Amino acid sequence: MSVIYARVALIGLGLIAGSMAHAMRRAGLAGEIVGTARSAETRKIAGEIGLCDRVVDTTAEAVRDADLVVLAVPVGIMGAVAAEIAPHLAPGATLTDVGSVKQDVIAQVGPHLTDGIHFIPGHPLAGTEHSGPRSGFAELFDNRYVLLTPPEGTDPSATAKLRALWEGCGANVEEMDPDHHDLVLAVTSHTPHLIAYTMVGVADDLRRVTDSEVIKYSAAGFRDFTRIAASDPTMWRDVFLSNKEATLEILGRFTEELFALQRAIRTGDGDHLHAYFTRTRAIRRGNIEAGQDTDAPDFGRIGQRKDGPAE
Amino acid sequence: MSVIYARVALIGLGLIAGSMAHAMRRAGLAGEIVGTARSAETRKIAGEIGLCDRVVDTTAEAVRDADLVVLAVPVGIMGAVAAEIAPHLAPGATLTDVGSVKQDVIAQVGPHLTDGIHFIPGHPLAGTEHSGPRSGFAELFDNRYVLLTPPEGTDPSATAKLRALWEGCGANVEEMDPDHHDLVLAVTSHTPHLIAYTMVGVADDLRRVTDSEVIKYSAAGFRDFTRIAASDPTMWRDVFLSNKEATLEILGRFTEELFALQRAIRTGDGDHLHAYFTRTRAIRRGNIEAGQDTDAPDFGRIGQRKDGPAE
Repeated sequence: MSVIYARVALIGLGLIAGSMAHAMRRAGLAGEIVGTARSAETRKIAGEIGLCDRVVDTTAEAVRDADLVVLAVPVGIMGAVAAEIAPHLAPGATLTDVGSVKQDVIAQVGPHLTDGIHFIPGHPLAGTEHSGPRSGFAELFDNRYVLLTPPEGTDPSATAKLRALWEGCGANVEEMDPDHHDLVLAVTSHTPHLIAYTMVGVADDLRRVTDSEVIKYSAAGFRDFTRIAASDPTMWRDVFLSNKEATLEILGRFTEELFALQRAIRTGDGDHLHAYFTRTRAIRRGNIEAGQDTDAPDFGRIGQRKDGPAE
Repeated sequence: MSVIYARVALIGLGLIAGSMAHAMRRAGLAGEIVGTARSAETRKIAGEIGLCDRVVDTTAEAVRDADLVVLAVPVGIMGAVAAEIAPHLAPGATLTDVGSVKQDVIAQVGPHLTDGIHFIPGHPLAGTEHSGPRSGFAELFDNRYVLLTPPEGTDPSATAKLRALWEGCGANVEEMDPDHHDLVLAVTSHTPHLIAYTMVGVADDLRRVTDSEVIKYSAAGFRDFTRIAASDPTMWRDVFLSNKEATLEILGRFTEELFALQRAIRTGDGDHLHAYFTRTRAIRRGNIEAGQDTDAPDFGRIGQRKDGPAE
């Protein structure tokens, strides 16, 4: 594959930006990769492991002459970072982000930008519970989806280039409206994360069940929850605060359904429970058929992390 | 390893019994393995794949002269099966089960047994979302826990033999009281399963988000939920109905905590969310240290299913 952007600036050097750096290098998609991060420690580690071609100290320096700038910071500070870099963006540059919420990011970032900048919000549906500059790996996006939410009137050639970059990183790219994106993600990601956090918190609180028992005897169900609940706290705080409306709506539906099942347990309505559990079983089958998971016991994760060790 | 029981009878031939058959053979723990199942189709498949040394049509035939009888049927029918086999059990035989709930199984099975039978309830904390006679594999119990809840006055040598069998199957064995077992499992397994079922059901219901989107765009969080929610409906219906009290208690705590987090989202209390998510992150670390999970992306499942294909 050939170079798509002569210079890519990564603002933030966590799991997603780090994986983008590895994936862009794997396919030779960027002439130069410049990176920066707010934390001096993160910049130091990134420099030591050669995560980017250059690690610089300021966002202004990072975005200078870049034709693609990627905001890979927590959703809560997207606006502040956009304000900081806006005066330094090269005319005609493309600005994108990797935030898990789109309407709020657009509201935060949009007002700071001048007409010459192509702002194309994005969201790669990929991740692990690890974070930090050592957590990235080239295969993270392979066969995963990246959702782009370009505003009306966006230059189609700018969108096409960004799409080509993500495809070069191994992803399938689709476009949708930001509000629809936020609802879909509230269902498939945000609410499940909140629920996992809650369940793990309940287990931790229960004094009659000692911590060591909860950990020792956690079979499949709870083990998956602890993994989900180990995700980056800052990122997830920001997700819930910025996708408030959709998350609260889905939570409302969730508690409604949960109460119905709870009532079935209390009243001994086995038929209700059995019918419900039979219906949900079919969804897993659909997931496997869509290629987002496998029937194998490793859930398609084997070999996804050939690069860095865990944090 | 040498033979521990001259004849083992497996009542029910699903994931757990099938895996026991494979594991007992791997280590040469049983002189003969006799199996039966209620469904003629299951018996036919078990016979075809040679799951047991003999597959027989009735429970009476299966338990004849067996020195270990394993009830591996849904919790809801343990009592009925116990009533059926009780007259045919050999004097001095050990009877155990693999049900996910212990107090209810004891209440169902106990009354049918005569004094000469050693009844030692058990629960292997291992499983996959697959079920049926083809789903078992020898490695399922390796480094997993098996909890035994022998009643007071149980012959220690009978317990020691059953412990040796499970250890020979690769498991770590611990003993605890049945009521404590049921509470611990409500936290680490039963409630998480109910929650996963609910979330998957909500996603399925949401008309503005099409089924294909839910499936296509499900990243880590929801994907794990669909796997959990794909577990056997009959088994799980029975678990919730028979561990009603503990499950309802943990569900009450869960909704209380969830409402507190929901309120934090609604009021924009980011500090509350961040503190909560930071606390839950530590539990994952404990899980890895306990050896019940690994830090690797396959979660320790690689190589667990060398035998049969999925159902």
